[in-house]
Amino acid sequence: MERKYKVGILGATGAVGQKFVEILDGHPWFEVTALAASERSAGKSYREAANWVGSKPIPAHLADKVVQEAKPGIDCDFVFSGLDASVAGDLERDFAQAGYPVISNARNYRMEENVPLLIPEVNPDHTALVEHQQWGNGGFIVTNPNCSTVGLVTALRPLVDTFGVELVQVTTMQAISGAGYPGVPSLDILGNVIPYIGGEEEKMALEPRKLLGTLQNGRVQFADITVSAQCNRVPVLDGHLECVSVRLKQKADAETVRRTFEEWQSPIAGYDLPSSPERLFQVFDDPRYPQTRRHAGLGRGMTVSIGRVRPCEVLDVKFVVLVHNTVRGAAGGAVLNAELLVKQGLLKYREELAAVA
Amino acid sequence: MERKYKVGILGATGAVGQKFVEILDGHPWFEVTALAASERSAGKSYREAANWVGSKPIPAHLADKVVQEAKPGIDCDFVFSGLDASVAGDLERDFAQAGYPVISNARNYRMEENVPLLIPEVNPDHTALVEHQQWGNGGFIVTNPNCSTVGLVTALRPLVDTFGVELVQVTTMQAISGAGYPGVPSLDILGNVIPYIGGEEEKMALEPRKLLGTLQNGRVQFADITVSAQCNRVPVLDGHLECVSVRLKQKADAETVRRTFEEWQSPIAGYDLPSSPERLFQVFDDPRYPQTRRHAGLGRGMTVSIGRVRPCEVLDVKFVVLVHNTVRGAAGGAVLNAELLVKQGLLKYREELAAVA
Amino acid sequence: MERKYKVGILGATGAVGQKFVEILDGHPWFEVTALAASERSAGKSYREAANWVGSKPIPAHLADKVVQEAKPGIDCDFVFSGLDASVAGDLERDFAQAGYPVISNARNYRMEENVPLLIPEVNPDHTALVEHQQWGNGGFIVTNPNCSTVGLVTALRPLVDTFGVELVQVTTMQAISGAGYPGVPSLDILGNVIPYIGGEEEKMALEPRKLLGTLQNGRVQFADITVSAQCNRVPVLDGHLECVSVRLKQKADAETVRRTFEEWQSPIAGYDLPSSPERLFQVFDDPRYPQTRRHAGLGRGMTVSIGRVRPCEVLDVKFVVLVHNTVRGAAGGAVLNAELLVKQGLLKYREELAAVA
Amino acid sequence: MERKYKVGILGATGAVGQKFVEILDGHPWFEVTALAASERSAGKSYREAANWVGSKPIPAHLADKVVQEAKPGIDCDFVFSGLDASVAGDLERDFAQAGYPVISNARNYRMEENVPLLIPEVNPDHTALVEHQQWGNGGFIVTNPNCSTVGLVTALRPLVDTFGVELVQVTTMQAISGAGYPGVPSLDILGNVIPYIGGEEEKMALEPRKLLGTLQNGRVQFADITVSAQCNRVPVLDGHLECVSVRLKQKADAETVRRTFEEWQSPIAGYDLPSSPERLFQVFDDPRYPQTRRHAGLGRGMTVSIGRVRPCEVLDVKFVVLVHNTVRGAAGGAVLNAELLVKQGLLKYREELAAVA
Repeated sequence: MERKYKVGILGATGAVGQKFVEILDGHPWFEVTALAASERSAGKSYREAANWVGSKPIPAHLADKVVQEAKPGIDCDFVFSGLDASVAGDLERDFAQAGYPVISNARNYRMEENVPLLIPEVNPDHTALVEHQQWGNGGFIVTNPNCSTVGLVTALRPLVDTFGVELVQVTTMQAISGAGYPGVPSLDILGNVIPYIGGEEEKMALEPRKLLGTLQNGRVQFADITVSAQCNRVPVLDGHLECVSVRLKQKADAETVRRTFEEWQSPIAGYDLPSSPERLFQVFDDPRYPQTRRHAGLGRGMTVSIGRVRPCEVLDVKFVVLVHNTVRGAAGGAVLNAELLVKQGLLKYREELAAVA
Repeated sequence: MERKYKVGILGATGAVGQKFVEILDGHPWFEVTALAASERSAGKSYREAANWVGSKPIPAHLADKVVQEAKPGIDCDFVFSGLDASVAGDLERDFAQAGYPVISNARNYRMEENVPLLIPEVNPDHTALVEHQQWGNGGFIVTNPNCSTVGLVTALRPLVDTFGVELVQVTTMQAISGAGYPGVPSLDILGNVIPYIGGEEEKMALEPRKLLGTLQNGRVQFADITVSAQCNRVPVLDGHLECVSVRLKQKADAETVRRTFEEWQSPIAGYDLPSSPERLFQVFDDPRYPQTRRHAGLGRGMTVSIGRVRPCEVLDVKFVVLVHNTVRGAAGGAVLNAELLVKQGLLKYREELAAVA
Repeated sequence: MERKYKVGILGATGAVGQKFVEILDGHPWFEVTALAASERSAGKSYREAANWVGSKPIPAHLADKVVQEAKPGIDCDFVFSGLDASVAGDLERDFAQAGYPVISNARNYRMEENVPLLIPEVNPDHTALVEHQQWGNGGFIVTNPNCSTVGLVTALRPLVDTFGVELVQVTTMQAISGAGYPGVPSLDILGNVIPYIGGEEEKMALEPRKLLGTLQNGRVQFADITVSAQCNRVPVLDGHLECVSVRLKQKADAETVRRTFEEWQSPIAGYDLPSSPERLFQVFDDPRYPQTRRHAGLGRGMTVSIGRVRPCEVLDVKFVVLVHNTVRGAAGGAVLNAELLVKQGLLKYREELAAVA
Repeated sequence: MERKYKVGILGATGAVGQKFVEILDGHPWFEVTALAASERSAGKSYREAANWVGSKPIPAHLADKVVQEAKPGIDCDFVFSGLDASVAGDLERDFAQAGYPVISNARNYRMEENVPLLIPEVNPDHTALVEHQQWGNGGFIVTNPNCSTVGLVTALRPLVDTFGVELVQVTTMQAISGAGYPGVPSLDILGNVIPYIGGEEEKMALEPRKLLGTLQNGRVQFADITVSAQCNRVPVLDGHLECVSVRLKQKADAETVRRTFEEWQSPIAGYDLPSSPERLFQVFDDPRYPQTRRHAGLGRGMTVSIGRVRPCEVLDVKFVVLVHNTVRGAAGGAVLNAELLVKQGLLKYREELAAVA
């Protein structure tokens, strides 16, 4: 690599934006050169503008960096977007049109026909969609799925490949950090369970069909899989735990399914991406595990933990999945997406792009 | 009623026993005349023997009452058993053989052929089984189900009656008080979810079949219903929240199911039992409800809350059930059982029994 | 009493306003006849306008009541104000000038010379200040102190009377409900302690001096007492627990101090006000008590709990105080203030006032 | 260093023992060669014997290691003791008599005249006491203080040195992990504060006097400092937060005190011990900091955080101290003690000891 890629962060002062800053600190391929946020924050130092909530301090070289307004013109090879959905639609479009690759965590473009909804271990070939995007100037948009979808679909991939999956029942117990900051009022969640997260069940029913779909003639043929989701907010900090039951196309017992998780090689197993965890799946045999607080951080938050693989009386097999929602399920997932794009030659230095144009 | 029934509490110093004491305080039909516990506690005042954890103080007339050893001979018409399963098997048998009706919260005799597993609103006729018990001297045992089963089965009853139910998927989020005292170490559950409760899923698969079974020739014909349960412990104090999906025999849309809950009349609707809640079901339309902390206590903990009745993509209908685990799901349920037995003429004063014998 | 007093609630949709509604439900002297809030809420039903967070439902007769804009003209004998400090200054003045007695929980007028800062058991004579207020038309303002101050000062009153108090060190552990709704973000407080509550320490240093002051020539002579406060937010729902150390003017040992709490008769002991708790102080000898979750609700939230009275190595005596912050420390305290004013003949029916004018 | 020191862990299966195992994993000077526990655990693999509660897995080379009974004869140069106080008295004596240096976290020998109560940055010279111990064979005992004392006394050291300190008022909010495992029942602490920790206040009053004492003629002259402590358990995982007020001998304003913390050089500043944090004190200016959950882990749990340095109305200056109770306050502190002893030449290889004998 000639030099590190210059990276801009859109929505840098928000919860997801802060997580990008934290995760990118010391990244071997990427360096943050632009912090962009709303007009209100522009002109302030990042320290002032962000109500920094991390436990580690703001990386020293960024604390006094001046926040810019989030609009094209900022100095970087591509941008990560941690924008809120209320503004992401327009702003991400503006950046793509201006020739910036946009690696987004927002939901706005996830279901667009030519926009990859991407988990590198699940559907790395979907990045080919970017060539069908029409923004011009080398700009494109790549998205990562909803934080609850990521854990579920990553766990389903080996089952789909090995046995086929027809039906999925999933009940989630989701962390408060999934709602951003300020997010869930403590009066609503302390010692409580809220059996509802707006829009979440719909996303969990739909996104897996695109993620597990196949690319045909430059379009994603959605997978024929039915998901019923019940989503709950519980008083935990980080980590979405999901109780999953599946109906397989080709029958298999629980032990075979368990071994399938353990032995599965992801399609990017040899890529050696910086954010790839040593183990994609951590499979537990102790029935008490995985546990949200204890295991969400495995593999620096990028490992998906699986446990309690056992027969289901109603469908075929049931098990538990745990995913770190703000790392694998958000900023970390987006960074891994960008790493995949670099590996695939789809992310270029600005000067290369200029040379082409 | 000529006089209040004299009641003994077995396991009076434990978590369930304390709840019995709390709930029976001021009861119009029952008065506690004997507090019984292990040899270790016997001879001490209740105040000394019990590590009282309630927020209201110990009822004044019981605080200085001397705890007796839990063995036949204590002065009462019948006993409530809050005994631990490790000793309940022997002790409840001893009391039944000595002629005491035993209204038990322990799991030991639940699946015995002649022992009613009882929820008054669900299967009040099952009490007829006591006449087939062979203890002699007028003694018998009646049990209430596991705390998670109670909420589920109470909600299933109207659906079974109206549409028939074939399949049930349920994922629970259970309160720490369900594990008794000292129960779950705080280091295990603070900010955490534990996806496992020993034995719970098996009970939830089995007990509903007996509870929803029909009495034929003095035996319970188990219901033909398949339940798959996934049980989790979450950091809430009281209240088990359950996400349920069902396959109905006779199809019905979510709105019809919702109305069925709302309009259902339980078989004991006219009995006017002291512990019966004004509303058996509280059905919520606000999708954020019911919530564990806010609604577990409705109807003084005896109401079962239901919400989010909606179509299920995999089975037919899904919804949320909330039950107060230590009231409706334990001590309160047992007290209601005793009230039903009184109403049915199955609980007698000791002198009546003596007269008969 | 000829009829119940008609009561208006200013800020009825907010957290404090909702608590007023909850507490006044079934009140023997007061009935809510007007629900007033911001222009945004005006015209909606209370059910629509308030994001009701209580566990009991909205009292039936108020759920569909139309919310009015908070400005003079609403139909009532007096108002309770649960207004936010940002608007309370102007609005409470407007109501007072228009002839309404304003029983306020807001901080804006607490330190005004002629405005009583009132805890009925502490300084019931301070209500005489209202006669010095200059609003005209019979309007006046009475305030209750900050929720942390209430517990501390109520506990100090018997010590001041019996021994004199020179110095007070207090460290608080305050509930999230003290910050209103949405209040403290869960990401900030779950499994955390925040050692800072803006403005709280200053209030705790100042308000006790007025509350414990003496009325001389129609003015409050501030008490000569020095308070140093350290205020923390902890993840509990309701109840402020305070660790207090005091230097007494006249030396006394811990046992004498403990007995002083136990035996103290408040100046309104014989008044029989509806919201007065049976016991003003609950003094615990078990060193583990009082505990926030278990004991904040004693006396329907109006009792002040005290425990661990023992010698202090640095000052003289130290002890623990627990107060229910949203009941005794806010809405309940204000209602008790109004009851005192009725008893003292200072709250009149609107028609009486009109007759006078 | 010729080779790593061989280390035995007494009480290896308990909460403190597990923390020793976790912290010593990859330690540059020490390697664990013996895991010792009660007879009940002896003979089992560590994986079986320990109910491992850490989030990282058991270090691979120790998981299958056989646990030995905790008695002299185990193969190591010295031992760390995480024994429970109920057995530490006898067992630590046995090991010392058998010639093992014992670096203990237990409270039993802390106040013994010849036993150093040690915080390397506070009183590194106190290690000289070991030469006065009479066990023979090169054995000795060194202890670290109570977890709450550590934070307080480390923060007091610069104040004692710079201004002198006469009086200290401290109120603690302590984490559940301080009570070990299973420790505090969740029913006691979820959403609660317990204003009592048995024995804690006495330790906080006494231990600082020894730690801040001066060595004279081979004995510790206790410091003339009076501490009044009020200790509370709050629902946080790790980290004891302490609100402190001090009376200084030589007056200084808050800003001077604040700067004293910032600029202070500990007596071991140049020693470069592996467990020494980069910054001993992290001083915060943001009044909301330090916060337990966010900052207890700073400096890998070895930094002491300080904030809110401001004038005290009653004494002179008040501030907040945060310490990680299971790292700096327990296992990490003991490891640092051992590192200091190595640096001072007081810990020897077994063969050196043998050569001497």
